[in-house]
Amino acid sequence: MRILVANVNTTASMTDAIARQAREAANPGTEIVPITPAFGAESIEGNYESYVAAVAVMETIRAYDDEFDAIVQAGYGEHGREGLQELFDVPVVDITEAAAATAMFLGHKYSVVTTLDRAVPMIEDRLKLAGLFERCASVRASGLAVLELERDPDAAIEAIVATAAWAVEVDRAEVICLGCGGMSSLTRRVVERTGVPVVDGVSAAIKLAEGLVAQQLSTSKIRSYAPPRPKHFFNWPPRP
Amino acid sequence: MRILVANVNTTASMTDAIARQAREAANPGTEIVPITPAFGAESIEGNYESYVAAVAVMETIRAYDDEFDAIVQAGYGEHGREGLQELFDVPVVDITEAAAATAMFLGHKYSVVTTLDRAVPMIEDRLKLAGLFERCASVRASGLAVLELERDPDAAIEAIVATAAWAVEVDRAEVICLGCGGMSSLTRRVVERTGVPVVDGVSAAIKLAEGLVAQQLSTSKIRSYAPPRPKHFFNWPPRP
Amino acid sequence: MRILVANVNTTASMTDAIARQAREAANPGTEIVPITPAFGAESIEGNYESYVAAVAVMETIRAYDDEFDAIVQAGYGEHGREGLQELFDVPVVDITEAAAATAMFLGHKYSVVTTLDRAVPMIEDRLKLAGLFERCASVRASGLAVLELERDPDAAIEAIVATAAWAVEVDRAEVICLGCGGMSSLTRRVVERTGVPVVDGVSAAIKLAEGLVAQQLSTSKIRSYAPPRPKHFFNWPPRP
Amino acid sequence: MRILVANVNTTASMTDAIARQAREAANPGTEIVPITPAFGAESIEGNYESYVAAVAVMETIRAYDDEFDAIVQAGYGEHGREGLQELFDVPVVDITEAAAATAMFLGHKYSVVTTLDRAVPMIEDRLKLAGLFERCASVRASGLAVLELERDPDAAIEAIVATAAWAVEVDRAEVICLGCGGMSSLTRRVVERTGVPVVDGVSAAIKLAEGLVAQQLSTSKIRSYAPPRPKHFFNWPPRP
Amino acid sequence: MRILVANVNTTASMTDAIARQAREAANPGTEIVPITPAFGAESIEGNYESYVAAVAVMETIRAYDDEFDAIVQAGYGEHGREGLQELFDVPVVDITEAAAATAMFLGHKYSVVTTLDRAVPMIEDRLKLAGLFERCASVRASGLAVLELERDPDAAIEAIVATAAWAVEVDRAEVICLGCGGMSSLTRRVVERTGVPVVDGVSAAIKLAEGLVAQQLSTSKIRSYAPPRPKHFFNWPPRP
Amino acid sequence: MRILVANVNTTASMTDAIARQAREAANPGTEIVPITPAFGAESIEGNYESYVAAVAVMETIRAYDDEFDAIVQAGYGEHGREGLQELFDVPVVDITEAAAATAMFLGHKYSVVTTLDRAVPMIEDRLKLAGLFERCASVRASGLAVLELERDPDAAIEAIVATAAWAVEVDRAEVICLGCGGMSSLTRRVVERTGVPVVDGVSAAIKLAEGLVAQQLSTSKIRSYAPPRPKHFFNWPPRP
Repeated sequence: MRILVANVNTTASMTDAIARQAREAANPGTEIVPITPAFGAESIEGNYESYVAAVAVMETIRAYDDEFDAIVQAGYGEHGREGLQELFDVPVVDITEAAAATAMFLGHKYSVVTTLDRAVPMIEDRLKLAGLFERCASVRASGLAVLELERDPDAAIEAIVATAAWAVEVDRAEVICLGCGGMSSLTRRVVERTGVPVVDGVSAAIKLAEGLVAQQLSTSKIRSYAPPRPKHFFNWPPRP
Repeated sequence: MRILVANVNTTASMTDAIARQAREAANPGTEIVPITPAFGAESIEGNYESYVAAVAVMETIRAYDDEFDAIVQAGYGEHGREGLQELFDVPVVDITEAAAATAMFLGHKYSVVTTLDRAVPMIEDRLKLAGLFERCASVRASGLAVLELERDPDAAIEAIVATAAWAVEVDRAEVICLGCGGMSSLTRRVVERTGVPVVDGVSAAIKLAEGLVAQQLSTSKIRSYAPPRPKHFFNWPPRP
Repeated sequence: MRILVANVNTTASMTDAIARQAREAANPGTEIVPITPAFGAESIEGNYESYVAAVAVMETIRAYDDEFDAIVQAGYGEHGREGLQELFDVPVVDITEAAAATAMFLGHKYSVVTTLDRAVPMIEDRLKLAGLFERCASVRASGLAVLELERDPDAAIEAIVATAAWAVEVDRAEVICLGCGGMSSLTRRVVERTGVPVVDGVSAAIKLAEGLVAQQLSTSKIRSYAPPRPKHFFNWPPRP
Repeated sequence: MRILVANVNTTASMTDAIARQAREAANPGTEIVPITPAFGAESIEGNYESYVAAVAVMETIRAYDDEFDAIVQAGYGEHGREGLQELFDVPVVDITEAAAATAMFLGHKYSVVTTLDRAVPMIEDRLKLAGLFERCASVRASGLAVLELERDPDAAIEAIVATAAWAVEVDRAEVICLGCGGMSSLTRRVVERTGVPVVDGVSAAIKLAEGLVAQQLSTSKIRSYAPPRPKHFFNWPPRP
Repeated sequence: MRILVANVNTTASMTDAIARQAREAANPGTEIVPITPAFGAESIEGNYESYVAAVAVMETIRAYDDEFDAIVQAGYGEHGREGLQELFDVPVVDITEAAAATAMFLGHKYSVVTTLDRAVPMIEDRLKLAGLFERCASVRASGLAVLELERDPDAAIEAIVATAAWAVEVDRAEVICLGCGGMSSLTRRVVERTGVPVVDGVSAAIKLAEGLVAQQLSTSKIRSYAPPRPKHFFNWPPRP
Repeated sequence: MRILVANVNTTASMTDAIARQAREAANPGTEIVPITPAFGAESIEGNYESYVAAVAVMETIRAYDDEFDAIVQAGYGEHGREGLQELFDVPVVDITEAAAATAMFLGHKYSVVTTLDRAVPMIEDRLKLAGLFERCASVRASGLAVLELERDPDAAIEAIVATAAWAVEVDRAEVICLGCGGMSSLTRRVVERTGVPVVDGVSAAIKLAEGLVAQQLSTSKIRSYAPPRPKHFFNWPPRP
């Protein structure tokens, strides 16, 4: 089984970190193919960048030549999943939704801990659209930009743990979702500190994608995600 | 990995059918241990029987001597999942919720097709409590009792297909969940007739349970599902 | 008119306290028949015990020989009401729902003050399923176990009053429901301290049950609560 | 105990019918005092008339000299309940809410059958504000004006029964609320025809009001329904 | 274009302030006709007064002889809009709804800052009925009575700014609606202090009303707001 | 005042039709600047094309040299509005939301009539995210592709009128929103046939944008729509 795991930003080291996490989560027979978008921003921290990333991921996967069995979109709170579902027949799993769906099997309510404050409404909106928000206790920001996570992981962990503890005690979350593709390596340390299950979105998405493929289930093509109707495009896709 | 798959009724042939379906869905390294409750009704078609089944599954698994890694509760729309989550540390996956969570990765809305009309409110209530109802297009009954499914599968398929088609066309479902543990063997034929993905709850639950175990995730013990406080029970559990 | 008032635990002194409260609330012509379940736990503080209590109440009332006009289930946030509605024709009133429905006639929003933190999600879930949650300002725990209420009522009152005051001031509740069958005797003292109406679930349920019986209204038998279909039970009910 | 039962229109024969129904429902010790508003419309079939009725009921009860223990507002889907709750300390029970709260103890979902199509959104809005809409299967109109109910009861029953049957079969209601103060006398005949419990709003409100008074519960005065602040009124109330 | 702008209280200086604000917001070709109700309270701070104001505005506009193109109801959280929509063909814009609808184009969530604590539930209820509550972060009271706003504007601004800042920081509002007809003159100073867009309800309502008239859109007369059916009124409307 | 009105597809005749409609709706002093995206699809009928359109509109407006006061995004149910709000300080009005917000001032519930069935979930999702869905009676498709509207307007009108009539009678809509940028010229004829107010999204958006600009209101920059953080983009934007 081959799963494309798409980073949403163009930073190769982030793609590598995501791929490592994905491979650690994957079954032995699963091949992880990391995708770095052919265009876009070095990190995604707002709607403009996220919309560019959405089309970049779509076009980059459209240009991928080999066969594959599933797509994991590894950006937290990002746009674009519906477009991937239209373009491809294989299952598409977004890590935001994967983490939430997984957390809901583990506790009565879950919270998402993310980086920047401005990402909170984006994540809330994705969870609402996905119909997975009702048991969300809170989406809270630790106040760290995406790239800082790599630069000063100790301070990042402190901020994340404090935010997670607040979510557990005040918002009454019983499970924490780490709301950022780059946080994967921090999972274990956060578990030790908070005592509740911590869901990593990339791992959750890989297991869900493997499960869907194993069940031979794929995207419904009857209405919302029917293939695009054939039509003329002007100046698109962009030439590299 | 060992997964206990609990039938909710006391009919051994149903346990067998569920076990077959579970084994077909499971990874090679997964051992499926079918559980038939030590007491209860031959089929579960209402709240009274379902409540008895809930405690029967709990007591039967409490009496199970060996180790296990996850529990799948294989009754559609049944009570009891929260009790299992309290009693055991391993992940507990209910097939009603597993089917819905899986369907939501495949289409914009899903419907559940079940047997008896009286099961519809039960299933709706379970999905509402699980926070998985918002993208539910409908829960519809085919009008067949549980045991008839085994006796006259052809008529059962006709009724199920017609109900599913109504859900897809009128209720605008894009995915169908088969809402009955005993329907598993019918999945493929329903897929051929309706053209939309059909989720079998037992298979979905197995893959989700395997995924949770692989991620080393387990039930949060911080509040809702903390272990029962030690206390005196009177005349309980019942002696065989 | 004869109303069965079912304690959910097996502690006779709790049954007595509930019966006293019920008799104080009842009309002169109403006979209160207290029921102590034939099996189960000495106190109910979690889902496992609550599920056992649910079937214990059902079986104990099934074994009750005389006629009766209504059932009050006197456990706060407990499972089982739907099963009683199936088994019997008379109205079934759960004290959790009775308190909420009553509170909603008295103020814009109500809060529930209960004992243990772990009961909060259980009560929330019952209110959500009952469709009575929208005007619930909060469910808050005073941090006291059920049996402590009898042992140290003064400390219990302090904790309850503080919790209720928080609900009124911060959560903006205008009415308080005391969320525990054993809190009934404390009602008056809480009223004096908080200044808002305080609803006792047992009293509320008795008045609602009397009202339903007087209107000759009973459980609808058309779908959700149709009588159980005749079928074979294995090893059930347990022999005393 | 003395309960004021306020008709919302100025038609004395309607007040009489409501009073008869209220007295039939009341306990022996309950005195029913029918109130006809001192001004307003002969029947209430829209928002303008309903707003006038709201203030008319308030002023008429303000002018009532004797003591009383509760107020029942006997108009279906009408405005004004919050104002009564501010003006008076005693419990105020609106028949729309009373019927819904009562129906929810009897079945999984209820429908309201009312007269004119234009009343449907009004009733829906009252139930939504009251937080009692979630288990409402539908509000449906029989297409009959209020005063026709008195003139041609046979045709009225036919239309009501047909509408109720639709609600039960298609909307899946398990209980019917008769959504019109003037329908009270028709209750029994509708029960015979539909086979589900039929709740009469006036009866339900009387029993709820009696129950609240018996529990010595009254409107919370802490925030929403605090007494009006003293202030100058210009040209109000109107002189007779 | 002529727009009637109805104050809801009988204080002429408040009508003047509202008219000034409306004229400042209006297009050059728009004539603002201020309406002071012919009867009612000097200020509206609760449901009783609000219900009287509702009918007072209706009757005062019914008695208005000239033609007009739209009505703005300039009371925050008040009753009565549905009655105006029935009585008149022109668009009716309530300032509570106008402010919310406007704020939703400017940020992800908005809060309303109002005067008295008791107005909070009234405003929440209006927004819920209007279907504009979902993106409401909070409705908060500054603790000031309506008439104090005119007497001590400096203290009023301090209280309002502090409340708005809390809404922005804690409730996560991104836009503030000033929830009181008399606050209009304070808008600019609040903007300077909080840094987020501040919507004045009167201005918002004027622009919306102008827009509706320019589009030749008017109230739908098909069901909810069909003209009142002809009928007899008793002692109504009151003679001056 | 200068308003950019962005068509979402690259078909110039559609841009012209939208510009005509916008100019007809605009105040005399408003300059309408039509925008055709620099790249993308000839018509937008699904998520893939819509995501490309979203970034195309963003980049095309970023490349626009002159000043402007507001942006209208003239695609029904399309992605991208949040990105525009981040990139620019001026108000951004999406026609889907503009039509809904406008319709809610005219009737109790509204329906959207759109072209293709597959657009229905997209429009529902936009309305849900915008918090404007609660009073939406239905979103219904007439079954016509976007470009057919220009080719055979008579058949289009027949299909639209039939769909709208169903929405009014069965779904109980009291207002119709025409859910397609290209339907603007059909508005008047639909009004004549259905008898309810018909809202054209482009006109509604122009009036709302004019109103926001006149009130000197603009997008809140405090959190969700703060300007993009400065960062490196790779291969973006595409060179023409």
